[in-house]
Amino acid sequence: MGISSGITTICCCSGTSISKLHFHHHLPRASIPSISPSPSPALQGRIKFSSFSSRSVAAARHRLGSTTASSVGSCCFTWDDVFRAGESNETDSASDLGGFFDRVKLCNRNLEKLNEFMPFVIANQIVGYVHFGFADHLRKFRDVFIFQKDTKAFGSNFGCHVTLHSSLTTAEDRTRAVGDVVKCLGEELIPGIRNELYPVVSSFGSPIFFSVERAAAPYFGTKAYGVHMNGYVEKDGQKYLWVGKRSEVKPTYPGMLDHLVAGGLPHGISCEKNLVKECEEEAGIPSSISGRAVPVGAISYMDIDGHRFKRDVMFCYDLKLPEGFIPRNEDGEVESFKLVPVTHVANIIRSTEFFKANCNLVIIDFLFRHGYITPENIGYLKLLQSLRSGDCS
Amino acid sequence: MGISSGITTICCCSGTSISKLHFHHHLPRASIPSISPSPSPALQGRIKFSSFSSRSVAAARHRLGSTTASSVGSCCFTWDDVFRAGESNETDSASDLGGFFDRVKLCNRNLEKLNEFMPFVIANQIVGYVHFGFADHLRKFRDVFIFQKDTKAFGSNFGCHVTLHSSLTTAEDRTRAVGDVVKCLGEELIPGIRNELYPVVSSFGSPIFFSVERAAAPYFGTKAYGVHMNGYVEKDGQKYLWVGKRSEVKPTYPGMLDHLVAGGLPHGISCEKNLVKECEEEAGIPSSISGRAVPVGAISYMDIDGHRFKRDVMFCYDLKLPEGFIPRNEDGEVESFKLVPVTHVANIIRSTEFFKANCNLVIIDFLFRHGYITPENIGYLKLLQSLRSGDCS
Repeated sequence: MGISSGITTICCCSGTSISKLHFHHHLPRASIPSISPSPSPALQGRIKFSSFSSRSVAAARHRLGSTTASSVGSCCFTWDDVFRAGESNETDSASDLGGFFDRVKLCNRNLEKLNEFMPFVIANQIVGYVHFGFADHLRKFRDVFIFQKDTKAFGSNFGCHVTLHSSLTTAEDRTRAVGDVVKCLGEELIPGIRNELYPVVSSFGSPIFFSVERAAAPYFGTKAYGVHMNGYVEKDGQKYLWVGKRSEVKPTYPGMLDHLVAGGLPHGISCEKNLVKECEEEAGIPSSISGRAVPVGAISYMDIDGHRFKRDVMFCYDLKLPEGFIPRNEDGEVESFKLVPVTHVANIIRSTEFFKANCNLVIIDFLFRHGYITPENIGYLKLLQSLRSGDCS
Repeated sequence: MGISSGITTICCCSGTSISKLHFHHHLPRASIPSISPSPSPALQGRIKFSSFSSRSVAAARHRLGSTTASSVGSCCFTWDDVFRAGESNETDSASDLGGFFDRVKLCNRNLEKLNEFMPFVIANQIVGYVHFGFADHLRKFRDVFIFQKDTKAFGSNFGCHVTLHSSLTTAEDRTRAVGDVVKCLGEELIPGIRNELYPVVSSFGSPIFFSVERAAAPYFGTKAYGVHMNGYVEKDGQKYLWVGKRSEVKPTYPGMLDHLVAGGLPHGISCEKNLVKECEEEAGIPSSISGRAVPVGAISYMDIDGHRFKRDVMFCYDLKLPEGFIPRNEDGEVESFKLVPVTHVANIIRSTEFFKANCNLVIIDFLFRHGYITPENIGYLKLLQSLRSGDCS
């Protein structure tokens, strides 16, 4: 069902929100992940970017039979399409970072709508933001949510902020009460409930006020933390990244490209331990190898999508893998892995939306740290800074 | 003249501004740089920081016979003192980043005094900031500097901003006219004139409005760019950094610790070419090796010191050197180089002010990217963000 083999099986891709895409056609889920190296050789180390660019994005759009900007490559593509994008050597400009900026924008949408949200305050600290429309649903739970007249301190646009009822003094009480509300609101208002708790904090490492269902976190605008790992191999002085393709039956971002390993940071586990766990589950990497993963920094983004306000911070890791190591997915979340030259991954990111949106940021960070993007590229500092567009705290 | 050998040769160190320190005693300049590896073995890869910390800073202060916060280690120390700080295994807390935060603060002083500066505007863009006291000296040059009534656009605290006379339309005219003023004001008002021109821009890569003498840049609050390179060696899985000790006769920061290679970015040369040039001059690294240096990002800081407002952006590079390579200073600016385990360098930074202030930031960035600072260290994200406290554009 590749782009080149016709568009008869192309799915609906016209929405602007990837998270809202629904798939009519699912590929059969591979029972044993197929793993093979990319068929193409590595390009030279530091790239003068070959470019799909706007011209070829338009062409890809045309091939996909679509005219909406966000649909290009956001679903229903094959590894062949991926390799084609990676190998493209169309060149608009040797130093064009435009495609990367587009991917950063994809994670930081609609920030002009921040004024539609009111602060969610606990113990005099802002822990989240709630859309005025969603707030209306909370108003009926008067023993849980209180709407307090705002002072200037929290800068609400509505003259009030949301807080929790003063009777909810412990983290356990708050977790239970908010959890009951989430259940009550149900899938219609908060789709994709996972029964996984995320801690609610004002900043990383600060006291946990309570925990909230993962799928509900963006509706309360609470911060979410995760670990993302770039697994790479070095052969003959060239670097390759292991790229995963998500299962077509995953509820979120099915079929899209992903890191070798990534996961949200649930309540009660450190980044390091979570990474080791995810390495085992997602890619079959034993702790003897994953223990060598190097924490290398963090990226952040803020994204508004209707009533949802994502405020995510991802801790980034690099893991240099032995040449002979072959990842193997253990939890059914990944369809297959391929080893792709970093220069090709860069082209894929610049010219397509094949990667799950936030993975783009973590890989662009990798491209900076490994010298694939250089100060000679116009917009270097602006792109570098944009990788922490969110509240990185 | 080490700390341990008594304090009779300790120089005056009581000022709060490193750049204003003057040395009464100069060591003889080494005609041939002495080069030797650190005598101590590497600590294990990822550090649970041993710490000099505030307690040992106080002790060092006592040994130095001084009570001012900024004096510790800011001059007159020997390699023995450096090694002692590096090897210290006093431990206050396994995850204390406090010493690193102190070094970041050292580069970002007095920002509450920003309201003492007025914008310096060219072609409707802010290119710098001038202290109202320094502005008074400029007022008499009426054919060069114009004080225009401010609109809200530039947010001046003085109701006006500085600009250049409308007759100065070309970069050449502006460079000459401002250069004449700088000469006229002389060493008393602008000490340390180097006859080196820095481009004046609103952001990196944008059009150059004119060029200004390097020593004068902070008086006009114009941005300055530079390249800083961490040269490291990997032996048996442990990393070592090459550390330079600046010549005692250098006009700026004499005797302090420095990167293997660093330099300001003058007008008309790219980062890459400047780095290759500095590698050759400062450490005798041939282009066949320096060409492998990897650009890895950038740090920024803003520092107010009297009439001076530094707004610096440093492009960071890593260069992995062959084990056998021995740097050799070619321009007399470095007294000697030593190879120091990265874990020891981390201790030196946390517990002393031996390094030239902005080098601390670039090395802390290295510690992040190479996994020596981890998300488990309290304050991880705050410290990471603080490395770009300045306008990084």
